[in-house]
Amino acid sequence: MIDTPYVFTFGAGASSADPRSRDKTITGGKGANLAEMASIGLPVPPGLTISTEVCAHYNANGKSFDDSLRAGVTAGIRHIETATGRSFGDAANPLLVSVRSGARVSMPGMMDTVLNLGLNDQTVQGLADGSGNLRFAWDSYRRFIQMYADVVLGLEHALFEDALEQAKEDNGFHEDTQMEAAHWQDLVAVYKEIVAHELGHPFPQDVNQQLWGAIGAVFDSWESERAKVYRRLNDIPASWGTAVNVQAMVFGNMGDTSATGVAFTRDPATGEKAYYGEWLVNAQGEDVVAGIRTPQYLTKHARERAGAKPLSMEEAMPEAYTQLAHVFEVLEKHYKDMQDIEFTVERGKLWMLQTRSGKRTAKAALKIAVEMVKEGLIDEKEAILRVDPMALDQLLHPALDPKAARDDLGKGLPASPGAASGAIALDAETATAWAERGEAVVLVRVETSPEDIAGMHASRGVLTARGGMTSHAAVVARGMGRPCVSGAGALSIDNAARTLRFGDRVLKEGDIITIDGTTGDVFAGAVPTIEPELGDDFATLMGWADKHRRMKVRTNAETPEDCRMARIFGAEGIGLCRTEHMFFDATRIPYVRQMILAEDAAGRREAIVKLLPAQREDFSAIFKIMAGLPVTIRLLDPPLHEFLPHTEADFAELSDTVGIGVETLKRRANELHEFNPMLGHRGCRLAITFPEIYEMQARAIFEAACDVVEASGAPIVPEVMIPLAATKRELEILRKLIDETAAAVFAEKGRTLDYLVGTMIELPRAALMAGELAEEARFFSFGTNDLTQTTLGISRDDASRFLNAYVEQGIYPRDPFVSLDIEGVGQLVSLAAERGRKTRGDIKLGICGEHGGDPASIAFCEQTGLDYVSASPFRVPIARLAAAQAVLKK
Amino acid sequence: MIDTPYVFTFGAGASSADPRSRDKTITGGKGANLAEMASIGLPVPPGLTISTEVCAHYNANGKSFDDSLRAGVTAGIRHIETATGRSFGDAANPLLVSVRSGARVSMPGMMDTVLNLGLNDQTVQGLADGSGNLRFAWDSYRRFIQMYADVVLGLEHALFEDALEQAKEDNGFHEDTQMEAAHWQDLVAVYKEIVAHELGHPFPQDVNQQLWGAIGAVFDSWESERAKVYRRLNDIPASWGTAVNVQAMVFGNMGDTSATGVAFTRDPATGEKAYYGEWLVNAQGEDVVAGIRTPQYLTKHARERAGAKPLSMEEAMPEAYTQLAHVFEVLEKHYKDMQDIEFTVERGKLWMLQTRSGKRTAKAALKIAVEMVKEGLIDEKEAILRVDPMALDQLLHPALDPKAARDDLGKGLPASPGAASGAIALDAETATAWAERGEAVVLVRVETSPEDIAGMHASRGVLTARGGMTSHAAVVARGMGRPCVSGAGALSIDNAARTLRFGDRVLKEGDIITIDGTTGDVFAGAVPTIEPELGDDFATLMGWADKHRRMKVRTNAETPEDCRMARIFGAEGIGLCRTEHMFFDATRIPYVRQMILAEDAAGRREAIVKLLPAQREDFSAIFKIMAGLPVTIRLLDPPLHEFLPHTEADFAELSDTVGIGVETLKRRANELHEFNPMLGHRGCRLAITFPEIYEMQARAIFEAACDVVEASGAPIVPEVMIPLAATKRELEILRKLIDETAAAVFAEKGRTLDYLVGTMIELPRAALMAGELAEEARFFSFGTNDLTQTTLGISRDDASRFLNAYVEQGIYPRDPFVSLDIEGVGQLVSLAAERGRKTRGDIKLGICGEHGGDPASIAFCEQTGLDYVSASPFRVPIARLAAAQAVLKK
Repeated sequence: MIDTPYVFTFGAGASSADPRSRDKTITGGKGANLAEMASIGLPVPPGLTISTEVCAHYNANGKSFDDSLRAGVTAGIRHIETATGRSFGDAANPLLVSVRSGARVSMPGMMDTVLNLGLNDQTVQGLADGSGNLRFAWDSYRRFIQMYADVVLGLEHALFEDALEQAKEDNGFHEDTQMEAAHWQDLVAVYKEIVAHELGHPFPQDVNQQLWGAIGAVFDSWESERAKVYRRLNDIPASWGTAVNVQAMVFGNMGDTSATGVAFTRDPATGEKAYYGEWLVNAQGEDVVAGIRTPQYLTKHARERAGAKPLSMEEAMPEAYTQLAHVFEVLEKHYKDMQDIEFTVERGKLWMLQTRSGKRTAKAALKIAVEMVKEGLIDEKEAILRVDPMALDQLLHPALDPKAARDDLGKGLPASPGAASGAIALDAETATAWAERGEAVVLVRVETSPEDIAGMHASRGVLTARGGMTSHAAVVARGMGRPCVSGAGALSIDNAARTLRFGDRVLKEGDIITIDGTTGDVFAGAVPTIEPELGDDFATLMGWADKHRRMKVRTNAETPEDCRMARIFGAEGIGLCRTEHMFFDATRIPYVRQMILAEDAAGRREAIVKLLPAQREDFSAIFKIMAGLPVTIRLLDPPLHEFLPHTEADFAELSDTVGIGVETLKRRANELHEFNPMLGHRGCRLAITFPEIYEMQARAIFEAACDVVEASGAPIVPEVMIPLAATKRELEILRKLIDETAAAVFAEKGRTLDYLVGTMIELPRAALMAGELAEEARFFSFGTNDLTQTTLGISRDDASRFLNAYVEQGIYPRDPFVSLDIEGVGQLVSLAAERGRKTRGDIKLGICGEHGGDPASIAFCEQTGLDYVSASPFRVPIARLAAAQAVLKK
Repeated sequence: MIDTPYVFTFGAGASSADPRSRDKTITGGKGANLAEMASIGLPVPPGLTISTEVCAHYNANGKSFDDSLRAGVTAGIRHIETATGRSFGDAANPLLVSVRSGARVSMPGMMDTVLNLGLNDQTVQGLADGSGNLRFAWDSYRRFIQMYADVVLGLEHALFEDALEQAKEDNGFHEDTQMEAAHWQDLVAVYKEIVAHELGHPFPQDVNQQLWGAIGAVFDSWESERAKVYRRLNDIPASWGTAVNVQAMVFGNMGDTSATGVAFTRDPATGEKAYYGEWLVNAQGEDVVAGIRTPQYLTKHARERAGAKPLSMEEAMPEAYTQLAHVFEVLEKHYKDMQDIEFTVERGKLWMLQTRSGKRTAKAALKIAVEMVKEGLIDEKEAILRVDPMALDQLLHPALDPKAARDDLGKGLPASPGAASGAIALDAETATAWAERGEAVVLVRVETSPEDIAGMHASRGVLTARGGMTSHAAVVARGMGRPCVSGAGALSIDNAARTLRFGDRVLKEGDIITIDGTTGDVFAGAVPTIEPELGDDFATLMGWADKHRRMKVRTNAETPEDCRMARIFGAEGIGLCRTEHMFFDATRIPYVRQMILAEDAAGRREAIVKLLPAQREDFSAIFKIMAGLPVTIRLLDPPLHEFLPHTEADFAELSDTVGIGVETLKRRANELHEFNPMLGHRGCRLAITFPEIYEMQARAIFEAACDVVEASGAPIVPEVMIPLAATKRELEILRKLIDETAAAVFAEKGRTLDYLVGTMIELPRAALMAGELAEEARFFSFGTNDLTQTTLGISRDDASRFLNAYVEQGIYPRDPFVSLDIEGVGQLVSLAAERGRKTRGDIKLGICGEHGGDPASIAFCEQTGLDYVSASPFRVPIARLAAAQAVLKK
């Protein structure tokens, strides 16, 4: 063994025995996998890895290498020389190496690769002699100078590109392939002059100087601005450092017995258990990627299925293919996951250059996970952990056909996943009307408000010019499972002309557009979509997830359709039924407005009485569908002015209905205007001032529950939720109101039901006072949307102006309305859970903010010991899987 | 001694020796003072007190009295009988008693008084014989029945009033005084019939039954709804209970050697050391209060000064007066405070019925506190504690002449103290124009915005229809020391007609109104005011306060006038200089708008450069006035759209200035609209997206500081404050910007200055993350206005719709924008202070929200160990005194 503690060798049967050599934290992702492959006998070109620990030492010590490191690397090079039978810097039989960075996780901003290191004016001749290919040798040399000058010496890439162009022009060539050995040799001379001119000293001819220069460049790149930004955004500590991999070159371009390729051990698109990949004969890795030549299929089956002519590797190089197929089997058995590999065949001999877990579509991830369990490779728990919950979104929504042509208009935020095409409708009424006559429509608004809900429901998708990922449009669309692109900055709408504009493109109302809510893209015309299918794999994996999760998964829903959909997706109850959505119905809104405009409690009561039967029907329908599953109903929450009319016509209509003059109505509406409605007269504050509203809602809940129990016998236990409380006293006053209403209804119905009264924790003060609140509340539901708004002081509707800059500059790692701000808002959630439980040991704790459908936030909920999460119907499967993962990762 | 542990006797040289008898927590305020007076030898009618502890026991045990209590009361009655030589229930020589409640603190909602208890059909004759006055005896009896029926038996007062009216009518009388003994006797019979009819049993003739009934009624009244509400609002525990005082009756209406009166040991209006009071010969206490007869002066001096004829008590009853004057001296020496007493002279003998600390005006409070120190009665510390800091407001602002006639229009919130009269101006321009031609104006607006600041400054006072105690109008008016009435609900303004309306009253612009910002009252016409005067007593007391306080007191100010005013009031620096106020100046606002409307950073920079000189002048002026005292400058905070024009004329003007079309400007302004500006693109978020703004402000600060140091040599250490931070990273980015700007300015000026960069803690997340923030911030200033808004989720501008209901229903004890919500927001302040100090031991901590001028909040700041509080200039004296009290009370 020739190891130092900081340099590990691998390959050629002489790999380091130190287990640290296969530990990603020590040798990085790439180095560890190379060592791993070598240790299980796979053909890996010999090499050495400098440990990540050296990186920090180097950067902390004036970028210097100490003697023990130098000795280690020298020994490592000797290992490679021995294994290859070549000598580093030897003019006759030169060893060439690649130098690559390799951090613990793949990281953009890091130095990528220097190939062919070890070439100089002498060794180029040895390479020519050894390969019998002079052109190859000089081309390799000029490529090396170009790459080294760029990534190690820091010279402008363009200097060399320009020289190459000049050389071709001088010779009247159009393609690099026209360049012969002598042309490359001349270009090498020009390149060397460029280097000497720019740096004031010649291109290094000493191969050791070349090597240490490259090693230093890798370490330097760890401290580059791009790498630092990436680390900050991804919470990667600077102390991790990067490893350096030095590996013997192998060449796939040494003639027709050489080849190169990339492959997956299974189909990454479908998950099918079939080798999948591309290769090229007599080519280098970059040729496969660069697209200059068309790569060929790996297997005969794939070639035939595609109806392609060029021979597959299976057919063209049966021996090398057999070696490769064997490697696939070994790798999957060893890593117990689908692998993404790079390989080179040099003169008939297979060399493995990389292996890693392969990226895959959601469908493939599901299939692979489920089948690997059947194959005995992994167990259920591992399968659960293998699927990214967010990827399930792809399965639940229509997606754009990736092959279809697209006419790009612009981009917004991917606010609600799925794709949809339809005629542009610029207001909710138009959307509803057109949808009723059978047209597919996409509702396009500057922003949506609660009045637009019917129009949103009638539309295939929603597009807005303003608003973030948790704007009204986004939240409601996700709840409905409608695709939505929000905050499309380039979109402007001219309501008078009934047109919209994306930059220079103008479209009329009625024109067809397509939105992709998964990516935020907007296209003109109809782009074909692929409908989702939930197969057996989905059901199997969900079944396993349900077995392993601790938290219940509920849904945020208030319409019968959404409730049914949520049950299909596996919801175990309703965590948030927003009663205000029921108030916007066209038959009810006049009474709501009458209530708001009433002068006194008697007037309000008169209007409210008319709302009672409809509200009771709402709850009956939900109780029936949920059939005894828990249903948490939030009493009226939004500020009353949200229900008031905006247009002249609406005011005129309302004036007729309630018999009050338009001017008076407008004045009254104006009086209800709020500067900061989010912090205004809403939530339980409405009921402290106008108790009649909650009294009616409580009555509707209890009457409906009694009726449904009477009819169906289902064990209904309504959970009545008081929003926006900040004090125990609010709950005291309102619980008394609810209890008295319940008692009255039970007396009338001759039946008693269990029910719970609880509150949302959505204000910092509520979290701080949770111990007191729990004296009155039997459950807490964390309303993390509002809690995030108040804790961070950010209105989600206004955040779009600065939140991108905030995420870009690493102020928040992610949009805190999408993924819970665990270190800030999370403190309040933990503290409230703890204080609530201290007062009431059996208090029920859940989350009903948007974060209830976000895997990272769900993991936090598991850690905090919440009893359930509640997500919009289409997020329920995501939540089920994420909740299971959270348990398994604990 | 005849005490039980629960019944204490006093008076006639046989007072209880138990010190608990003089402890307010045991015998209540009234009982303790009676016992105290008796114990120091003052003439108190003998009596007994049932301890407050009995109250809880009585109410917890089915409202029953146990035997030991009965024995104690019986023994106490015997003490009174012995002392008076009368017998309770004795027909020949009856003892009559009063029964009164007496809690630890004076409390409305409690049973007040039953007089003449012990009268019945037999004893009334004994009273007649003893007093030689038959009419007096029967009148006393009928009064007793009426009072007892009302407060003990719970019968309607009106039943008896009606019967009395009927009796007078039957006899053709108009006045009670026309009723003779026989008439009263007849009425007693009627009264007894009423009682028997209403209750189904006769009025109790058994005097012991009378007594226990009255005792029970006192305890019952502790549990009355009114008492409960009062306790909740004032945070008085139900467990305190009330005491019951039973005392021998004395009569001031037994002829010309009898009298009754109320007095203060010093003048409660001026504080002058002169007895002050009123008395009536041959009268009962209620006659003095009821105003049927005009009371007379107590002293000759006072009578002569008033030019009154009726003899003073000093002249008319010299012997009794001498006794009384002696009592005054004894009381002041004993209680070491000005006393408010009630007395009765019965046939030449003085009896003391009550003593307590007298209420007084602020001026009197100051004078009495200072003079009592000179007299050696109290020390400086006690003097500091004697003056209510809030009362100082009376001294600093003009007040309405209490004698002037008033034409009441309506009421709003007392948003900024003081009174002002002037012509109604309905917009800021009009106010400025009229003020410039020398008129006194009152600016009347629906609500004010930053644009109105010049108009507010030009006005004598400000009146708004909307907004709470911490609305823009309130905060700015307090800062300027202008009286303000905000949120006058009945006020509506018709801008088109240039009129305003209060209910049915319509006033035109230009009409004179008067506002009283101390009470919230609004009057038509000019009500004369009294100008404030700050005398030597004020200076003396402030000097003592400064000696004893630990926290520094700074001011919130940004204009040179305010800074000068604050220094006069004793400010020790500026805690909050709001730079945005400087942006509204007419010569600057066009550039501010140009900056906002610029398309890119270059355009913004171009506009900003034009603002630099003006901003530098602002800071120079402040640094000069503050002459080395600390100055904390908050960088730009409000959302940019606040600076944009609203009127067509403004848009047209701006269009000319910046050369952009009106429509484009309007669209751009509309784009900047925010749904919840409080939670929008403001504070340091502006600088994260547009760093040029803070860069310019930092440059202006450092250039001004260097210039002023150069010119004056004053040791200027600017404190640069970053608003609305929620993350360490924001501070990291902006501190770097400020440090770089400072370095650039220092290099240009050839001079280096110390400076601090710090942040406001005004978001819950900032408080939670204070430990991290302190890594970047050298000081924290608690912005408790915004911290209250976000923690409670209440917009102070929108709170007026529900906050009254919240305070009335005991949800918040006081307006949390006026007095810090210590149990909620206070948790965050404490936690942030603790975490900040843990990271940075010498971090400077202050408060600059409105709460910095509120005594209760200041006490909390002292407990939390803040280094300073910062208040608006007119609140600085209040803060100085409150800070001293906070130390002394700790």
